[in-house]
Amino acid sequence: MVRVGVIGGGQLARMMIPAALTLGIELKVFAESEGSSAAMAATYVGDYANLEELTAFAHNCDVITFDHEHVPIAHLEALCAEGVRVYPPPGALALTHDKIVMRRALQHLGVAQPRWTVIESSTNRDQALGEVGGFPCVAKLPVGGYDGKGVRVIASWAEAEEWCALGPVLLEEKVDFRRELAQLGARRPSGEWVAWPVVETRQVNGVCSEVLAPAPGMSAEGGRQAESIASTIASAINVVGVLAVELFETADGRILVNELAMRPHNSGHVFTELSLTSQFEQHLRAVADFPLGAPELMQEFGVMANIFGRLDGHLARLAEEEFPGVKIHDYQKAPRLGRKVGHCVAVGSGVENTLSAALAARAILEGDNYDGQRGSS
Amino acid sequence: MVRVGVIGGGQLARMMIPAALTLGIELKVFAESEGSSAAMAATYVGDYANLEELTAFAHNCDVITFDHEHVPIAHLEALCAEGVRVYPPPGALALTHDKIVMRRALQHLGVAQPRWTVIESSTNRDQALGEVGGFPCVAKLPVGGYDGKGVRVIASWAEAEEWCALGPVLLEEKVDFRRELAQLGARRPSGEWVAWPVVETRQVNGVCSEVLAPAPGMSAEGGRQAESIASTIASAINVVGVLAVELFETADGRILVNELAMRPHNSGHVFTELSLTSQFEQHLRAVADFPLGAPELMQEFGVMANIFGRLDGHLARLAEEEFPGVKIHDYQKAPRLGRKVGHCVAVGSGVENTLSAALAARAILEGDNYDGQRGSS
Repeated sequence: MVRVGVIGGGQLARMMIPAALTLGIELKVFAESEGSSAAMAATYVGDYANLEELTAFAHNCDVITFDHEHVPIAHLEALCAEGVRVYPPPGALALTHDKIVMRRALQHLGVAQPRWTVIESSTNRDQALGEVGGFPCVAKLPVGGYDGKGVRVIASWAEAEEWCALGPVLLEEKVDFRRELAQLGARRPSGEWVAWPVVETRQVNGVCSEVLAPAPGMSAEGGRQAESIASTIASAINVVGVLAVELFETADGRILVNELAMRPHNSGHVFTELSLTSQFEQHLRAVADFPLGAPELMQEFGVMANIFGRLDGHLARLAEEEFPGVKIHDYQKAPRLGRKVGHCVAVGSGVENTLSAALAARAILEGDNYDGQRGSS
Repeated sequence: MVRVGVIGGGQLARMMIPAALTLGIELKVFAESEGSSAAMAATYVGDYANLEELTAFAHNCDVITFDHEHVPIAHLEALCAEGVRVYPPPGALALTHDKIVMRRALQHLGVAQPRWTVIESSTNRDQALGEVGGFPCVAKLPVGGYDGKGVRVIASWAEAEEWCALGPVLLEEKVDFRRELAQLGARRPSGEWVAWPVVETRQVNGVCSEVLAPAPGMSAEGGRQAESIASTIASAINVVGVLAVELFETADGRILVNELAMRPHNSGHVFTELSLTSQFEQHLRAVADFPLGAPELMQEFGVMANIFGRLDGHLARLAEEEFPGVKIHDYQKAPRLGRKVGHCVAVGSGVENTLSAALAARAILEGDNYDGQRGSS
């Protein structure tokens, strides 16, 4: 039996459990704390920043993969040097650790992305501003940001000074986008690549609120372009596992890369119900080097809506009573303002019906006292 | 969080785990041994025939349900007397413990079934034989049979003497059936009932080999009749959870009840891929008293094929390589001649395509050295 070790005990590790059970894979989760979302599969609770603990854990696994991207790259390189299989490999994962490294790599690949530059103390700021089209533009901390954190639209240098004092800051053009998209696929060590159709992601306060799959009204050419961007990146940097590429679709129809994730991703949750193969199954297949599953859609259309703050059982039952076709996923996370604690999925034919079912179910789940906060950790 | 205790650590308990994770139900499995199929959720390993162990386990659960039907009814009644919620209730489950009790109950309900009688030492055998249409007929041990065990087609009394010496024997007409069917549905404590479409089951040596869903060529009237039989039984005996009714479709178009099961059932595995709501999710919803999920089919048609004896990882990968749309479920059971160790499911449009994909995938899984044995425990 193949033993797959997952670093991190969050909802992504939790949602790998069903796929592992079906595939007959032994899942071993390295959790940060007792009572994690993936507690059922947690075989170790400790500190993933401690190389000794990581090494001891890895020696009981055939391959190591991730629930999150926070493990120091140097630790992963040390594991690889010892012969541990780490998927995605540290060299690929490094792109998700540092947005400047990512921009450079994508530029090298010739993949379309927003205009960008790096601000350091020695930088000629006027010239830099010119390179990204002037104010307003987007400042990003290269390291540690997620879900809208470490990202700021600035209209003056004053708004970036605090970050500039810390070190290099990534500056990007403020893209005039029509909407945001995400392209997901998975790659095996051999290079075999299987992609789902591109999806539309809707953000509120920089955090994904809903996903519509496939992206409504996407042209065949646009779909091919998104898929080609993702497969180009995956193969160039040797991703193994699921790759999620967050994209901008510009007002003038171009597709630009916004961010990368190399693991199952919030934008792919909809495929659990919608596709014959979920992203969790596909990720495990890829890292275990099993044949990838068929990504065909089981229904015409699907919508995923994130649930923030708290997931109340009583409200969930009310929502299910009214929408027996909507599937509510409970991550069993402690309530916290703006925290992602679950999601719901509706599938069917027709964008409007499906979207309104998912939104109406979420509205019931949010209850009367919903504070409106989406997106804080 | 609702705590559902499952007695038995077999593949049915294993396949409840994914649904429990999604629903945010705490699943606690009472396993017979370490390393059971449902080991990941096993919170206790012991002897389910021991009332003390059972009681201690039940006191940490909100409701008790089952992976198998072997717990003594008196034990379950004792739990109920203490206020433990047991679903299905012992009075319903008793029908699966004794086939004579079941036949009497169904007769009382006026549900169509094969002609039957009971042979005891005092019985007038000629008269009994007349009641079931003469030889050949079917002799059944009332207690302990499953998967074709304890069932025998007899052409003379000599073939039944060994069983008759043990006590009462159930005698049934040998039904001239066109095919076998199964009707599954689930019932909540309130009486809410949701059914899937009736399926066709194909047996080899008395053991289910394939399931075709929905049953091909079933008339709307036949489908209604099957569903009505199951809902009548469920409500009359107060089933809570999934009820599976195994049926004969006779050459002259009647539908007769063969057997009952009150838990997820082999004939319902196909719904994991085919329906919006799997039987495992529906069973947990019913016993936890959650709203039942929509039973709509995601594709036109599905086929489940059981895998017997051993599930070889290398062969599974070969099958997946050739059939990336077929899902292989590995129960992680030790190999044993004829044992059910997994199943595979194909879904799609068109009976023939789907059936041939499932059978071809299984043929690869069975390998060149397959012994041809299906159905031994």
